[in-house]
Amino acid sequence: MSPDERWFPSHLREIAPDECLELLAAHEVGRVAYSDERGPVVLPVNYSLDRDTILIQVSPHSVLARHLDAAPASFQIDDFDDYSQSGWSVLVRGQASYVDTADLPDDQARPHTWAEGQRTLHIRITPHDISGRRLLSA
Amino acid sequence: MSPDERWFPSHLREIAPDECLELLAAHEVGRVAYSDERGPVVLPVNYSLDRDTILIQVSPHSVLARHLDAAPASFQIDDFDDYSQSGWSVLVRGQASYVDTADLPDDQARPHTWAEGQRTLHIRITPHDISGRRLLSA
Repeated sequence: MSPDERWFPSHLREIAPDECLELLAAHEVGRVAYSDERGPVVLPVNYSLDRDTILIQVSPHSVLARHLDAAPASFQIDDFDDYSQSGWSVLVRGQASYVDTADLPDDQARPHTWAEGQRTLHIRITPHDISGRRLLSA
Repeated sequence: MSPDERWFPSHLREIAPDECLELLAAHEVGRVAYSDERGPVVLPVNYSLDRDTILIQVSPHSVLARHLDAAPASFQIDDFDDYSQSGWSVLVRGQASYVDTADLPDDQARPHTWAEGQRTLHIRITPHDISGRRLLSA
């Protein structure tokens, strides 16, 4: 991905993978993306970072459960400020798969979902690519 | 899409299409999603709302130009508050296509991009589905 794909190079900085992981560890809402027969879908979710993987918790009857079983998926977080016209984004590309309960981390490292509901299914997105960009103020 | 896919029904409200368009008209940064051979990709962009379509402006040599030429695409905006654990999201699913200069709206209705650069190509996402959800505080 060339630096000018989203932002002009003069005000763009790549975010190193380590800092991408720090940003992922510091937030709790992101967006998961999958593709169905009509194209890509982007939905907000609570998540946690487990080592370098993304954990989300869903209902087994949800559209996310249906589309994130051994499937390509992305996970994205960002933050922008309208006043300074600056911000950053992190994109995790990888593979989503169901998680056996035995493979879940301790409670505190699991996602804390804001919404109630029977979210008994955990899904892990294992990255093959983590990238980030920062747009500085002009 | 059933109401419990993202949030538990008790705190979830559907956002009517008219209000989705109002939210889209009131913001200037969103996320465009496309699919390539490795799965979905989500990238932040400035945009404008032109009637019920999304306009973005890109470099003709960018990855977005390459993947948004007569292709399925989505556009997403959201806003969440960590403290009240509430927020909303709007998802536009549609078809992306290049825009002839003659079909562009007046300057003020075109996207205003924060980043500099030779963004001579406009892309329009024409929706076939606009949906939104609001998560109320518990």
